Amino acid sequence: MSQPIEILLIEDNPNDVKLALYAFQKSNLANNVQVLRDGAEALDYIFCKGIFAQREATHLPKVILLDLKLPLVDGHEILRQIKADPRTQIIPVVVMTSSKEDKDLIESYKLGVNSYIQKPVDFDQFTEVVRQLGLYWLIVNKMPPAEIISDA
Amino acid sequence: MSQPIEILLIEDNPNDVKLALYAFQKSNLANNVQVLRDGAEALDYIFCKGIFAQREATHLPKVILLDLKLPLVDGHEILRQIKADPRTQIIPVVVMTSSKEDKDLIESYKLGVNSYIQKPVDFDQFTEVVRQLGLYWLIVNKMPPAEIISDA
Repeated sequence: MSQPIEILLIEDNPNDVKLALYAFQKSNLANNVQVLRDGAEALDYIFCKGIFAQREATHLPKVILLDLKLPLVDGHEILRQIKADPRTQIIPVVVMTSSKEDKDLIESYKLGVNSYIQKPVDFDQFTEVVRQLGLYWLIVNKMPPAEIISDA
Repeated sequence: MSQPIEILLIEDNPNDVKLALYAFQKSNLANNVQVLRDGAEALDYIFCKGIFAQREATHLPKVILLDLKLPLVDGHEILRQIKADPRTQIIPVVVMTSSKEDKDLIESYKLGVNSYIQKPVDFDQFTEVVRQLGLYWLIVNKMPPAEIISDA
């Protein structure tokens, strides 16, 4: 059986996906990353629908990294649905965006985002930020065990 | 005028306060920490009541570190009040507890905690965890500017 997914990366920009995977790899955090490239696919994965209908819903990722501007369904709508559902509301969601607009930031916090990060433009800074957030959410932060969540 | 408070540390155990302040200092994060030692004092500070009635409400900390077992008002009730009020719901709250009980963890996530950390018993590990969470919430994570929050 494959290892459970630890990081869900919801990002449509191929360069940002590549850079994030590189940063995870550099920090030995790259083993269990699932990349989803549009909002509809992301919702199917998270809620075990469509092509992901057979996925085991109790396998929760330790963190979801969410871009805001996505094809088909935008990041705020995905965040809203995750935080509105008792099965998924406890998954930590980190918005990682190149948006500099305060309204995106405030809307994310109002919808219950766990953390909000502006993507650094500089390559080294981007790598360092991804490394730090990986360490924080995979190692420092504590999630409930999956079997307890599904009973809750 | 004094610098705005960046870290609110709500903790009644004097040893844990000392250790956390030491860890912040070691990481050059100790400048602007406000320590509150019981739950009633914490609520007065956060909502500018009682002895903190003169405090400027738009000065939001960048992160609140919250113990669960506190005198007078417990941590879960403080968390509930912070996340129920539009003025304060966007402040990142990290529960930092020695509790090993899953129900404390699940209750915290249900109330909208941003992150949950079990205090390591080991001194060096405790220092490292406090350093990492300080770096993450003060530097990596992005908060809305105070003047925008108060208008929202």
